[in-house]
Amino acid sequence: MSLETNSSKQFLLDFQKMSEFGATIRGGVNREAGTGADFQTRNWFRKIMTDRGFSVRQDTAGNQFAMLNLLNNDDAPCVLIGSHLDSQPMAGRFDGAYGVLAAAHAAQRVAEHVAREEVTPKLNLAVVNWFNEEGSRFSPSMMGSSVYTGKMPLETALQTTDRTGTSVRESLSNTADNSLPAPTAASYAEIHVEQGRILEDAENTIGLVDATWAAKKYRITVLGEQGHTGSTLMKDRHDALYGAAKFIVAARELTEQFEDGALHSSVSELGLLPNSPVTIAREVKINLDLRSANVEVLQRAESLLAKQVQEIEQTANIKIEQKLTHEWGLVPYPPEGVDLAEKAVQELNLPYQRIMTVAGHDSTNMKDRVPTVMLFVPSVEGVSHHEAELTKDDDMLAGVDALTAVVSRLVSGELLSQ
Amino acid sequence: MSLETNSSKQFLLDFQKMSEFGATIRGGVNREAGTGADFQTRNWFRKIMTDRGFSVRQDTAGNQFAMLNLLNNDDAPCVLIGSHLDSQPMAGRFDGAYGVLAAAHAAQRVAEHVAREEVTPKLNLAVVNWFNEEGSRFSPSMMGSSVYTGKMPLETALQTTDRTGTSVRESLSNTADNSLPAPTAASYAEIHVEQGRILEDAENTIGLVDATWAAKKYRITVLGEQGHTGSTLMKDRHDALYGAAKFIVAARELTEQFEDGALHSSVSELGLLPNSPVTIAREVKINLDLRSANVEVLQRAESLLAKQVQEIEQTANIKIEQKLTHEWGLVPYPPEGVDLAEKAVQELNLPYQRIMTVAGHDSTNMKDRVPTVMLFVPSVEGVSHHEAELTKDDDMLAGVDALTAVVSRLVSGELLSQ
Repeated sequence: MSLETNSSKQFLLDFQKMSEFGATIRGGVNREAGTGADFQTRNWFRKIMTDRGFSVRQDTAGNQFAMLNLLNNDDAPCVLIGSHLDSQPMAGRFDGAYGVLAAAHAAQRVAEHVAREEVTPKLNLAVVNWFNEEGSRFSPSMMGSSVYTGKMPLETALQTTDRTGTSVRESLSNTADNSLPAPTAASYAEIHVEQGRILEDAENTIGLVDATWAAKKYRITVLGEQGHTGSTLMKDRHDALYGAAKFIVAARELTEQFEDGALHSSVSELGLLPNSPVTIAREVKINLDLRSANVEVLQRAESLLAKQVQEIEQTANIKIEQKLTHEWGLVPYPPEGVDLAEKAVQELNLPYQRIMTVAGHDSTNMKDRVPTVMLFVPSVEGVSHHEAELTKDDDMLAGVDALTAVVSRLVSGELLSQ
Repeated sequence: MSLETNSSKQFLLDFQKMSEFGATIRGGVNREAGTGADFQTRNWFRKIMTDRGFSVRQDTAGNQFAMLNLLNNDDAPCVLIGSHLDSQPMAGRFDGAYGVLAAAHAAQRVAEHVAREEVTPKLNLAVVNWFNEEGSRFSPSMMGSSVYTGKMPLETALQTTDRTGTSVRESLSNTADNSLPAPTAASYAEIHVEQGRILEDAENTIGLVDATWAAKKYRITVLGEQGHTGSTLMKDRHDALYGAAKFIVAARELTEQFEDGALHSSVSELGLLPNSPVTIAREVKINLDLRSANVEVLQRAESLLAKQVQEIEQTANIKIEQKLTHEWGLVPYPPEGVDLAEKAVQELNLPYQRIMTVAGHDSTNMKDRVPTVMLFVPSVEGVSHHEAELTKDDDMLAGVDALTAVVSRLVSGELLSQ
């Protein structure tokens, strides 16, 4: 039995074991950041990595790093590879977790190539599990990588609380990991499930991510007035939930005014006051998430929605406040990283294509700081953030091969000093 | 200074003091059942009633009774009068609380009439503060009077939990009151603010409630599927929040298909899973509250809505489940009670009218068990369940006069053995 077959078997065994933490009855996982199930996964990750010769540490933002000192110099910068082990509630077992495990196996294989002197390292190598990529419990998402890249102050992250008032700081106090400074990354690579159906439809195995869709995210506040649900005359009502419902419908049906697939529009979070069966809502807070591969589509969507907001304010007798909270344009990944990945997958004879990502990833942060490569493997029917999320074994294994080839090149110093 | 002027002053002073418990900055109160502010009000109520010669007890369902033994026979049945001291969140200071204090003052005055031998009592007299009339923290509403009238098992009430998991039983364990059996009521009277604008528009001071609007209340569950808000194609989505929003809009706009004021339709409660900024909702639960003075209007509204539900299920690719949780027809108050009240207010020369109640009250429960009188005083602009709720001092005092006259008749044995 070849070494590669052995390591494929081990990968699938590891993936099966990892999927037991926070497992749901329908094959998904429930592993929000900083919960018991997240810490079970993190402890398991620390143990297997330590057993396999990595030195594991955690930084103060909760990011876990499993480090290999290839250069016999602890202080040398590293190629950082990984993703995140946390999940949305009742979500799939592939999102993020696949990328961390693929990185762990790729790192081991590269270390073997180095040991056999097939690769001459110019950098150390570290596998990262970013804290709270999902942002469902502690908002916003991509928190760990945002702190690492200096986009969010550490203190802001630590003070963030969930809906019950528990802070990130408190949730991290449960960790058994030692707190040490994060290693310095010279480059970054990440592999993730696509969460869409482009690769599957095109029958390609690897996606080379060359750009992120443009996105605008808003916090919408609808202001009404309390009243008795029974006795208040309909014409006297200022019903914030009615106003919010009209907004949610308008935001969704906006997508019908564009070409099929050109605009994604979502409202998925809602908070309501006083949320009583007999009192009309005085306030509703919702999110709005608009995404497109075309910045002009986003702009047109915005102005169409603005007109409807005025109509809704009049019809429902309420006020709507809109605050932009996140925004990014059509952001390219570094083209030299895409080229490097293309050479790697060509050598492996894997069917591949260039692809854009609609979702944000930790690599979205990292690419703004260091040379970064982002790879996708197919998601069956594009299902994601759902227990039925699935990536086939062969595709997962091909992804590990592709990531290994990319990391070998990065460790050898490609993309350095360019 | 006459006794009546003195007692009017005392009423307004008491009302001012009572309004301090759970007071909000804009003149309302925040006094949900079983909270600290509710217990402050209850303790104050126990103290003033004890000081004024009443014997105060609490039953196991949390109802407070302040009893006057007019017959020198503790076991004799009583005329029960009162309302509730709890409130909706951020609500007005009149709803319920006015009725309890009016009952306390009316009882004192009737006791004075008895002491002066102007009234010969055939029944004892007790003032009640019903537990959890509002139902915003512990659902359903009218809980205390439902247990008293045998419509809800005591154990069901005690096991009811709020959103944080605290039970009615736990919340009541904080009370300082002794737990003793409730007195037996031979008849019941309640006065309440109208929560509508009919009395104000007609320039009447007292409303004689002769019927309750018909109502149907539903629990609606919208079932969708989780997915990534960014990457899931619009046509692949099963967005439960989009479906719920369309339902909320349809339920509200249903009222436009009827004559102005014929149908009240409300959705005011909403729970959402997983409620994450990047995951499409898999489930939304909302309430639906339909009310009308005309049972046929309710039936037509129901069938119109059913058609729209089918369309929404198709458009939004979701399922809608609808469960009827409460229903009552056009329920009359006992006509002999209305006649008694009419005589009482005619003698006082108060401008009055017959009126229907849209809102439910504890008297809605009591009228199904014993002869019951229900009175309204005007609400300025009909505002209710809102901090700006207002009933003018003169109207409050006229209401105490009317209730006193009604209770004198009830204590004298009118409505007995009819």
